[in-house]
Amino acid sequence: MSHEFDTKSLGKPRRHKRTATGYLPEVDEQGQEKWPKGDEATWKAGLRGVDSDVPEITKNIVHHVQTTLARQAYNIDDMGAYQATALAVREDLIVNWNETQLTYTKKSPKRAYYLSLEFLMGRTLDNALLNLGMKDKFSEGVNKLGFNMEDVLHSERDAALGNGGLGRLAACYVDSSATCELPVWGYGLRYQYGMFQQLIAPDGSQLEAPDPWLDNSNPWEIPRLDVTVDVRFGGHAEKLEGNRGIWSGGQEVLAIAYDCPIPGSDTKSTNNIRFWSARPRRGFDLQSFNAGNYERAVETSNSAANITNVLYPNDNHYAGKTLRLQQQYFWCAASLSDIMRRFKNTGKDISEFPNLVAIQLNDTHPTLAIPELMRILVDEEDVEWNAAWDIVTRTFSYTNHTVLPEALEKWPVQIFEQLLPRHLQIIYDLNWTFLQAVAKKFPNDVAKMERMSLIEEANGRQIRMANLAVLGSFKVNGVAELHSELVRTTILKDFVDFYGISKFANVTNGITPRRWLDQCNPSLSALITETLGSRAWLKDLYLLKGLLKYEDDVAFHKKWAASKANNKQRLAAYIKSTLGVTVDPRAMFVIQVKRIHEYKRQSLNILGVIHRYLTIKAMTPEERAKVNPRVVLFAGKAAPGYWMAKLIIRLIVNVGKVINSDPDVKGVLTVLFLPDYSVSLAELLIPASDISEHISTAGTEASGTSNMKFCLNGGLLLGTVDGANIEIAEEVGEDNVFFFGHLTPAVEELRYNHRYNPIPVQEKSPALAAVLDNVMSGCYGEASIWEPFINTVRQGDYYLISDDFDSYLNAQAMVDEAYTKDPKEWIKKSINTTARMGKFSSDRAIMTYAEEIWNIEPVKI
Amino acid sequence: MSHEFDTKSLGKPRRHKRTATGYLPEVDEQGQEKWPKGDEATWKAGLRGVDSDVPEITKNIVHHVQTTLARQAYNIDDMGAYQATALAVREDLIVNWNETQLTYTKKSPKRAYYLSLEFLMGRTLDNALLNLGMKDKFSEGVNKLGFNMEDVLHSERDAALGNGGLGRLAACYVDSSATCELPVWGYGLRYQYGMFQQLIAPDGSQLEAPDPWLDNSNPWEIPRLDVTVDVRFGGHAEKLEGNRGIWSGGQEVLAIAYDCPIPGSDTKSTNNIRFWSARPRRGFDLQSFNAGNYERAVETSNSAANITNVLYPNDNHYAGKTLRLQQQYFWCAASLSDIMRRFKNTGKDISEFPNLVAIQLNDTHPTLAIPELMRILVDEEDVEWNAAWDIVTRTFSYTNHTVLPEALEKWPVQIFEQLLPRHLQIIYDLNWTFLQAVAKKFPNDVAKMERMSLIEEANGRQIRMANLAVLGSFKVNGVAELHSELVRTTILKDFVDFYGISKFANVTNGITPRRWLDQCNPSLSALITETLGSRAWLKDLYLLKGLLKYEDDVAFHKKWAASKANNKQRLAAYIKSTLGVTVDPRAMFVIQVKRIHEYKRQSLNILGVIHRYLTIKAMTPEERAKVNPRVVLFAGKAAPGYWMAKLIIRLIVNVGKVINSDPDVKGVLTVLFLPDYSVSLAELLIPASDISEHISTAGTEASGTSNMKFCLNGGLLLGTVDGANIEIAEEVGEDNVFFFGHLTPAVEELRYNHRYNPIPVQEKSPALAAVLDNVMSGCYGEASIWEPFINTVRQGDYYLISDDFDSYLNAQAMVDEAYTKDPKEWIKKSINTTARMGKFSSDRAIMTYAEEIWNIEPVKI
Ligand SMILES: Cc1ncc(COP(=O)(O)O)c(C=O)c1O
Ligand SMILES: Cc1ncc(COP(=O)(O)O)c(C=O)c1O
Repeated sequence: MSHEFDTKSLGKPRRHKRTATGYLPEVDEQGQEKWPKGDEATWKAGLRGVDSDVPEITKNIVHHVQTTLARQAYNIDDMGAYQATALAVREDLIVNWNETQLTYTKKSPKRAYYLSLEFLMGRTLDNALLNLGMKDKFSEGVNKLGFNMEDVLHSERDAALGNGGLGRLAACYVDSSATCELPVWGYGLRYQYGMFQQLIAPDGSQLEAPDPWLDNSNPWEIPRLDVTVDVRFGGHAEKLEGNRGIWSGGQEVLAIAYDCPIPGSDTKSTNNIRFWSARPRRGFDLQSFNAGNYERAVETSNSAANITNVLYPNDNHYAGKTLRLQQQYFWCAASLSDIMRRFKNTGKDISEFPNLVAIQLNDTHPTLAIPELMRILVDEEDVEWNAAWDIVTRTFSYTNHTVLPEALEKWPVQIFEQLLPRHLQIIYDLNWTFLQAVAKKFPNDVAKMERMSLIEEANGRQIRMANLAVLGSFKVNGVAELHSELVRTTILKDFVDFYGISKFANVTNGITPRRWLDQCNPSLSALITETLGSRAWLKDLYLLKGLLKYEDDVAFHKKWAASKANNKQRLAAYIKSTLGVTVDPRAMFVIQVKRIHEYKRQSLNILGVIHRYLTIKAMTPEERAKVNPRVVLFAGKAAPGYWMAKLIIRLIVNVGKVINSDPDVKGVLTVLFLPDYSVSLAELLIPASDISEHISTAGTEASGTSNMKFCLNGGLLLGTVDGANIEIAEEVGEDNVFFFGHLTPAVEELRYNHRYNPIPVQEKSPALAAVLDNVMSGCYGEASIWEPFINTVRQGDYYLISDDFDSYLNAQAMVDEAYTKDPKEWIKKSINTTARMGKFSSDRAIMTYAEEIWNIEPVKI
Repeated sequence: MSHEFDTKSLGKPRRHKRTATGYLPEVDEQGQEKWPKGDEATWKAGLRGVDSDVPEITKNIVHHVQTTLARQAYNIDDMGAYQATALAVREDLIVNWNETQLTYTKKSPKRAYYLSLEFLMGRTLDNALLNLGMKDKFSEGVNKLGFNMEDVLHSERDAALGNGGLGRLAACYVDSSATCELPVWGYGLRYQYGMFQQLIAPDGSQLEAPDPWLDNSNPWEIPRLDVTVDVRFGGHAEKLEGNRGIWSGGQEVLAIAYDCPIPGSDTKSTNNIRFWSARPRRGFDLQSFNAGNYERAVETSNSAANITNVLYPNDNHYAGKTLRLQQQYFWCAASLSDIMRRFKNTGKDISEFPNLVAIQLNDTHPTLAIPELMRILVDEEDVEWNAAWDIVTRTFSYTNHTVLPEALEKWPVQIFEQLLPRHLQIIYDLNWTFLQAVAKKFPNDVAKMERMSLIEEANGRQIRMANLAVLGSFKVNGVAELHSELVRTTILKDFVDFYGISKFANVTNGITPRRWLDQCNPSLSALITETLGSRAWLKDLYLLKGLLKYEDDVAFHKKWAASKANNKQRLAAYIKSTLGVTVDPRAMFVIQVKRIHEYKRQSLNILGVIHRYLTIKAMTPEERAKVNPRVVLFAGKAAPGYWMAKLIIRLIVNVGKVINSDPDVKGVLTVLFLPDYSVSLAELLIPASDISEHISTAGTEASGTSNMKFCLNGGLLLGTVDGANIEIAEEVGEDNVFFFGHLTPAVEELRYNHRYNPIPVQEKSPALAAVLDNVMSGCYGEASIWEPFINTVRQGDYYLISDDFDSYLNAQAMVDEAYTKDPKEWIKKSINTTARMGKFSSDRAIMTYAEEIWNIEPVKI
C-alpha cells in the first residue's frame, strides 16, 4: 500500500526544474514558430505593445486605480496616483523586457553577469519614463486625471539596497548596459529591509530605524515564484578520488527569483536584475518536521527567510557576521545555478561555458562563486578538476574597490567548516596547487607564500577572499587610475609578480548621465539639449564638449547661472520644509555628502568650518560684510557600529546648532546636516552645489563617483589628489579644480613620523590647534564627548588632518576668491567642468568592460 | 534649530487617519456628484464593467500573462493559466465589490459584522465563476487559449484559514450574506501559515508540515496598505474617576487590512472579509530603536509580524498560549477600530451605534471585543460607563459552538495583566456590578455566584470567556436544536435563570448549496436544474421538494444513479492517482471525514471495520460472495498535540494496510485513510458517498455541517441522535436515516456507571471484546502501540464506545440490507434525502440571524 508519505523523499535536493523565462516558441519543419497551445489569433489579439498615446495611458492608469488598487476614482491621493501610474509603466517595461529576453534567448550571444551584493537603485518611475521617452505623455495623462507629475514622482520610496558608491555604481552600470544594448544581467539579493533610515536625535547623534521598503509593495519587481533554487548549508562533505566530492545533509533554503526590469535610454533594450529572496524549502524545515515538532517547524520556516532579511550597513568595512557569509553563499549559489541552467539551455558543451558566460565579481563579496562553480563542474557535471579550473578562470573577472585593510574580507575557517564544508575542501585543494606553483616560481620565499596563500594562518586561520578572487579570475581591475596603480603596487603586488602585469587593468568608474543630469537637473538638461540641438549627448557624453563654444557667451552664462540658481532654490525649499531652516540661495553652497568615514574626512571639513566661524567671529562688522557667505551642507550615514563616524556626525550637528544660532555670523555662515542621505536626496543636492568636497586622505578613496556627479552638474570640485579626482582634473583642467593636501607617496612617511617623530599640532598648524582647543572648550557640548575624536587628531592622526589642514584652508580661500572676485570666470569654470566630463559616463565604463574584459557585443532588439 | 528628530513623537499612538474605502464622491449644490480631481470624461473612459463576452475575457487573461506575470504566451503551464485567469476574475469581482461598498456607504444601512478567527475558504476561482454566472464563458475562453478549465481550477491552492466546522461555517455564511444581499462583513486574521498539511509517515502516524499558502501570492485579496490600525500590548493602565482609564506604553503593532471580495450568487452584491495582518509599527520597534540597537530593532520588527504567523490547529480544544491571546486581541482591536471609524463616517451620535452596527461573536474567540468596545467608548469617546455598557450590550450577540468542557476558553489573569492591563480593569469593574446583581436576584447562593463570576478562582484565577460573552451580548445562540437546549440546561443554565429564556435562541447551522452542490457536484446540479426547469433552487433550497414528484420515476432514478456513479468514479480516479490504490466504484462507499476527535468516534468506526473484517474472514468463500462490498474511507486531521487522536489515525492506517493486502477480503472490503483532508478534498468526497457516518457520542456534537453536505448530495446518513442529525432526520424522515446508539439523556448515567459500577466489555459487548483482543493480538502492529487507546475503551470509556457498539453494528447491518435488498428503494431514499434538505441552506440560517438577531435588511445593489 503506497498511500503513506516517505519522509526520505524530503531530503533530496531539488534543483530548478522549469522556468518562467528563457523559453523559445517551438518551430515547425519550415522553421516557422508554432503556437503550441490554443488559438494563435486569440492569443495575439490580447498581446499589447508599449503605450502609444495619452488616452491609452490614462485608460491604463484608471484601470489600475479601479481594479488593481480597488479604489474609487474620487478617492485617490498622490500615493494612489503613484501606484497606479507605476503599475501602468511597469507594463510598458515588461513588454520591452519580454522582447529583449526573447531576443537574447534566440540569438544566444555571450552574456555578462554582474554579481553585486548591493544595487542602490533609488526611485524608478522618473527614470523609467525618461528612458522610455514617455515622460511628457505620462505627465499629460496624469494631469488629465487631476494630479501633478512632480507630486506623483515624490510619492515613490527609494529602493536602497546598497550602502553607497559600490551599490550605486552597480545601478549605473545596469542602466548603461541596457542603454548600450549589451546582454548583461545583474544578480543581487532582495533584502526585506534595505539601508537603514537615519534620524538625528536631540543630542545630535545618529539613530537608525529599519527600512521596510517592501511593505508598500513594489511595482518594479516581477515575482518569479517558479524560478527557484535549493541552496544547501552545513551538512557533510565527502571526498572522492580525483578531487571530486559529495556534499549532503544540512539545511536547505529555497531561493526565489524577483526580476527587476532595467530599461535602456531610447532603446527597446531592457535588461534584468534578478534578486533572490530566501524562503524555507517547501515551506518547512525538515529536521523539526521529522522530529514531529509542528511549532518548531513553523518557527524554523521563518528563520530560513532571515537570510535575506537585512542589508549589512557597513561601507568599506568588513564585519564578519556568519549571517553575512550565508547571504553571500546563498546569492552565489542561486545565481550560478541560474546561469548554468541558462547556459545548458543553449545545448552547448560545458567546455563552451566561458565562451557564452562572463561573470564580474563586484568586490570580493561574490568570491564564493569561484569555488561554487568548481563544485558544480567537478561534483555535479563530472568535469575533470583541471579542465574545470580552466573553465572557471576563463569565466570570472574581479573588481577591487578598496585598498583599505579594514575592508578586506576574511572568513574564519571555522565558520566555513560548519556552513560550507565542501567549499573549504575545494579551497584547500586549490591552495595546495597554487602554492606549489608559487614555490616553483619564487623558491624559498616563505614570506611571499605566506602572503599569497588563500589561508591566513595568523589570527586563527582565515580565508582571504581577495586572494581567492585574484586566483579565480582572468582579469582584475581597480576603479580609477591611481587606485589600480595602488592595487598593483601594494595589496596585489605579489600577484602581479606571479601572473605578470597583463592580468591587472583599470576601468575608471562612471555614472549614468540619464539619472545624474537629465533626471535630477531638468533645467540644465534642457539648456544643454537646446544649446547642442539634440539629446544625443545623453548617449554620447563627449558631445558635451560642444558647450565650450559658449564658454564666454553672455546669454548662455545667464541661462547657465539661472539653472544653478533654480536648483539652489529647489534645495532651499526642501531644507525649509524638512528642517524648518531658511537658507539664502544666493550664498555659495558647499556640499559634502557621502558615507561618514574617517578616511573621507568629514572631520577635516567640520574643523575647517569651525576655523571659518572663529575667523568671522573675530572680525569687525565691516569685515564680515565682505566675507563670501556660505551654506555648508553635510549628509551621509555612518555604519551603526562605527562609533567614531557617529561621533563626527554628532559634532557636525552640534557645531551647526551653535553657528546657526549665533547672530554674529547670520547670513554669512550656515552649517547643516541633512538627515537620511539617499539617492533621492543626492538628486536634489548635486545640482545645487557651487563647490563639493572630496577630501579623502590621499590614496584612500578608490575612485568616488559623487565627485563626477557634482562636476557633471557644473559644480566645482574641492579635493585631494585622490581617486577619480585626479582624472577629473585631467579632463576639466587643473585650473578648474581646487586641489590641496599631501600626495599619496608622502602618506606612508607622514604616518611613520606621526608614530615615531610626533610633532605637536600647535607646531604643525596653529590654526588647527586653535580649532581643537575651541572644540574642547565646551561650546559645542562637554569636552568629554569630543575628546576621543580630538585625540585621533592630536595623537597618531592616521588620516593626516594635521598635515593637510593649512593646505585645506588655503584651498578654501582660493575658492572664496574665485567665487567673489570674478563671477564670470566662475561660470566659465562651471561650463568647462560640465563640458569636459564626457569620459565619466558609465556608458564608457561599461563598454570598456564589454570590450576589454567580458568580450561581449551589443544585441539589437 | 528644528532639524533633529524628536524620539518622543514615535511613542504616540497613531490611529487610522484616512482610508481607501468607505468614501463618497462630493456633490455640488444640486446634489449632483462632482468629480473632485481631473477630467471626468478621461476617468470615465477608463472605468470598466464586468467582463461581458469571450473575446474580452481572453484579452484580459492574455494581458495578465503578458504583463502581470511577464511570461511568454507559449510558455505557460496550468499554474500560469490559473494565475492569469484568477487575475482576470479578480477584476470582475472588484468591479462589483466597488459598487456594492459604494452603495452601502451611500445608503448607510445597519450592518452586521461577523467576527470569526477562522474562515475555511477552500478554493475561490470555481465558486467565483459560478456565482458571477460566468463559468461557461470563461471555460470557453480558457479553452481558446489552449487550456482545460478543470486543470486550471485544480491548480489553485486551498485557503485553509480554519480548523473545521466553525471555520467552514463562517465561509458559508459570508457566501449566503452576499447572495441574500445583506450588508455583512467578515473580520478575520490573515495567517501567514494556514492549517497544516497532513502527511502520513510509513508507520501510519500523522506528520504535520506548515502551510505557506501565501508564498504563491494570493489573487483573491486586495492589500489595503493604507488601512491600518495601531494595536497596543502591555504597558500601563491607570484608573481615573468614573471607571475611566488611560492605557499607555507597551509595544504597538500595526494591523494592515487585506480585503477579500465575496460574490453573491446571481447578484452584483459582493461582500467583504477584512483580514488583518500584523506588521511592526513604522517598520521598527521603538524600544530597541531608542536603545540604539539596530540589529535588535530589525529582529523585533520581525517578531511583531509573528502575531499573524500561524493558525492554531486546535479544533474544539482550548490551548491557552499567550500568542493566541495576542492574536485574539490584535484582531478584535483592529476590527473594532475599523467598525468605529466606519460608524463615525455616518456622522451619527455615538448612542446610535447599536442602531447601525451588529457584531456577531463566532464562539468566544472574539469576546475581547466586548471590553475593547467598553474601553473605546469610555476611555476614548468619553461615554459614561453605564451608557457605554448599554451600547455594548445592544451591539453584540454570541454564538456558542460547543458544550465540551475542554473547549471552553479561560485565560489566566496573570497573562491578561501583562498584555491587557486596561481590559483586566474593565472586566473587574463589569464583574463587580454583575455579581452584585446576581447576589440581589439569588441571595445567599454563593455557589451560583462562583459559577457565574467572570473570574474562576480555582486553578490560579482565570477569566471565563463564555461568561463574559454572555454578559456582553443581547442574544446567545446554539447551532442546532439539541445543542441550544443543552446550552440552556447545562453550561449556561445559571444565566438563563438570571436573564430569562428569551436571551437564548437557536439558529441551526446551514451550508451554501452553491459550493456544496452546484460547484462540487456538477452532474447532480445539472440533473436537478433540468428536472426543476430552472436554477432557482440554488437560492431557494426548499424548491428541491419539486424532485419528490420523480421519486418513483424510473428514468429519473437512472439519471440519479448515473450521477452518483460518476462521482464515485471521479473519487476512485483521485484515489488511484494519489494513493495508487484501485477501488471499485460499484462497491458501497462509506465515508467518515471530519476532524479526528475522540468525541467524533472515528474509533467506533474503525473498530466496527475490524469487526466486519473478522466476520468476513470467518466466512466461507460462498458466504463472502454475498457480502455487500464496501469501501470505507476516512479523512481528517488531528491537532498536532492531540496524542490520542493521532494514535487513532495510526490505527486506521495500519488496519487498512492489513485489510487491503488480505486476499480473503479482496473486493469485499477496502479501508483507506486519505491524507490531508481539506475543503477541496471534501468537495470530491461528499458527492461520492453512499453512506456517511456522523457518530459522535450523543450530546457532544453541537451541529455538524458535513452531515448536511452529504445528505444534500444524496448520500444517506448513518449517525447517532446528536447535533443536526436530529433535524436532518426530522426533515428527510426517520426511515431515510440510520440512527443508532444511546440518547443524550442517558449519557450522564452511563458515564457514572462506567466509573462506579463498571461492567467488563466482554459482558457488555462480546463482539467489541473480540475486536479489542484482535487489535491487541499484534496483527496491526505491536500491542503496546495500541494499548493506551484500547484502555480508554476498556476503562472509563468516556465516549461510550462499548455502550453503542452493538447498536452500531446493527445499524450497519440495516444499511447493508437496505443497499443490497432493494436498490430502487435506496435511490428513492437518496432522492428523498436531497429533496428534503431545503432547511439546511445557509441562506435560511443567515436570514434568521439577519431578522431575529441583527435586525438588518437586504440592500439592493
Ligand atoms: C546615496 C549615495 N551614496 C553614496 C554615493 C557615493 O558617494 P561618494 O562617491 O562621494 O562616496 C552616492 C553617489 O552619488 C550616492 O548617490
Ligand atoms: C474541510 C472541512 N473540515 C471540517 C468540516 C466539518 O465537518 P463536520 O461537520 O463533519 O465536523 C467540513 C465540512 O464539510 C469541511 O469541509
